[in-house]
Amino acid sequence: MKIVTLGTGGAIPTPVRNLPATAVQRGAEIFLFDCGEGTQLQFLKAGLSPGKLKAVFISHLHGDHIVGLPGLLMTLNHLSRKHSLSVFGPPGISDYIQQTCKCLQFTPGYELIVEESSGGRIHSGSDYRVDAVPVDHTVFTLAYVFEENERPGRFLLEQARQLGVPEGPLYGELQAGKDITLSDGRAVRATEVLGKLRRGRKVVYAVDTCPCQQVVDISTGADLLIHDGMFSDQLREEARLKGHSTVVQAAEIAQKAKVEELLLTHISPRYRDQDALLQKEAMAIFPHSTVAKDLMKFEIPVHK
Amino acid sequence: MKIVTLGTGGAIPTPVRNLPATAVQRGAEIFLFDCGEGTQLQFLKAGLSPGKLKAVFISHLHGDHIVGLPGLLMTLNHLSRKHSLSVFGPPGISDYIQQTCKCLQFTPGYELIVEESSGGRIHSGSDYRVDAVPVDHTVFTLAYVFEENERPGRFLLEQARQLGVPEGPLYGELQAGKDITLSDGRAVRATEVLGKLRRGRKVVYAVDTCPCQQVVDISTGADLLIHDGMFSDQLREEARLKGHSTVVQAAEIAQKAKVEELLLTHISPRYRDQDALLQKEAMAIFPHSTVAKDLMKFEIPVHK
Repeated sequence: MKIVTLGTGGAIPTPVRNLPATAVQRGAEIFLFDCGEGTQLQFLKAGLSPGKLKAVFISHLHGDHIVGLPGLLMTLNHLSRKHSLSVFGPPGISDYIQQTCKCLQFTPGYELIVEESSGGRIHSGSDYRVDAVPVDHTVFTLAYVFEENERPGRFLLEQARQLGVPEGPLYGELQAGKDITLSDGRAVRATEVLGKLRRGRKVVYAVDTCPCQQVVDISTGADLLIHDGMFSDQLREEARLKGHSTVVQAAEIAQKAKVEELLLTHISPRYRDQDALLQKEAMAIFPHSTVAKDLMKFEIPVHK
Repeated sequence: MKIVTLGTGGAIPTPVRNLPATAVQRGAEIFLFDCGEGTQLQFLKAGLSPGKLKAVFISHLHGDHIVGLPGLLMTLNHLSRKHSLSVFGPPGISDYIQQTCKCLQFTPGYELIVEESSGGRIHSGSDYRVDAVPVDHTVFTLAYVFEENERPGRFLLEQARQLGVPEGPLYGELQAGKDITLSDGRAVRATEVLGKLRRGRKVVYAVDTCPCQQVVDISTGADLLIHDGMFSDQLREEARLKGHSTVVQAAEIAQKAKVEELLLTHISPRYRDQDALLQKEAMAIFPHSTVAKDLMKFEIPVHK
């Protein structure tokens, strides 16, 4: 699983920070969180294939998080996409997409599935799921939890041999978590030959938001928390008024939730060469903090 | 007058060509022609001040020419714009802007004037005017003619002296084209002391379009024709089917209209390192052709 920061700014783009967009690539599928203006170009610059895009998750209907979506949908059409694309977001997103398509006479040649959510399980695949949770911004905003299902434990070869399981297809069935019966009639449960369940990877995307308990709750045990860190802590009041977090507040959330890593994003355009300052403020609270720059890549290894 | 190419691609952005947008800077005012995704960032990269933006002219409602507009309007708001902004375009543009503002709950803090046109004089300032002319694309599309009014001729000092005009404020009145009466009762007409009228500068923006007579007609005597040149002449049939021009066809238009310079834009994303090929094709017909790249600047000097 690879996280790619496509746009790490907020409100207004700058030459070094595009508007919000974060890609999660997992195997041959890409999941996109927010789609600010310019996202499709950042996709190209990051070397990501638009054809692999599986679903888009929009946090809220402020322009800087969504106006890159129509262009991306149109480009997928130019690229002759045939397989469906799902877009998830808060109530109102269907109307925005429908009106834009109508006004610009755009009819995608692929199935475009738009689903609105006020929170809860919104999407799942064979081995992962995505939950949406309302957070605390100036308009209705969803944070997203992308989490892989637990995987069966390691196959304990020595145990299987001792239980008399013959090498061959039965090994595969046990590995997949299935109980079996041997030719002599004895039953072998999968749990007898498998180590403990291996947890899936978990990424939380909470942008834009004030610091709030909901994000602590959903982030427990996350490998990566991507959190609004728009301001230095010197602008705590401005952050509150605008529905954002300071890097220190985001670091406190990460600390409370005991996440592995914190990625601070939606950095205000006022900060040009002050990443080090923001980084220092956050690290004083939570050492595993990173102030995001555009086109960074983070690998999250499988849990063994 | 300075022309700045902000986006010279078409359909899909590439790392070297943004989507259509061309700025015309004249004194302290900037006029923007088309506004593809990413235009606001190109504005910054070109060192143009968004505060100087006077009016936006949209050629047609295909997404690659307009989806950068909402983000630009929102950014002007973030920058606390107070003076009005005019947006001109074909029928349907009001609906697109209204729906986008409504769906994204965006209310500009400045006066946003949107005017639809099917052709004709659509805008004029104290010393320039802009005309819209329907051209030949797959949807209703307007070309734009930006033309300065003629300026009075040079002041012929020797003539004025010979006619007995005393040095002082009367010189200014004559220079401004006003007839005067001297203290001894003799009349002096401005035309007696002024050289011939000096023509204004003229720029034509014709993107997207198949080659058509209308563009020849409106481009006569233009200093600069900015024309659709999406394809090499090897793809003449594809150009026709998609409502575009080849660089050779555009050069033929420039030749017929006897323009000073031709700027070929809306270059297909398929051409990566083939500017020289396109340039060669166009120059074989019209030597003063340039295949546009992003962030080029062209000065058009005042006519003397």
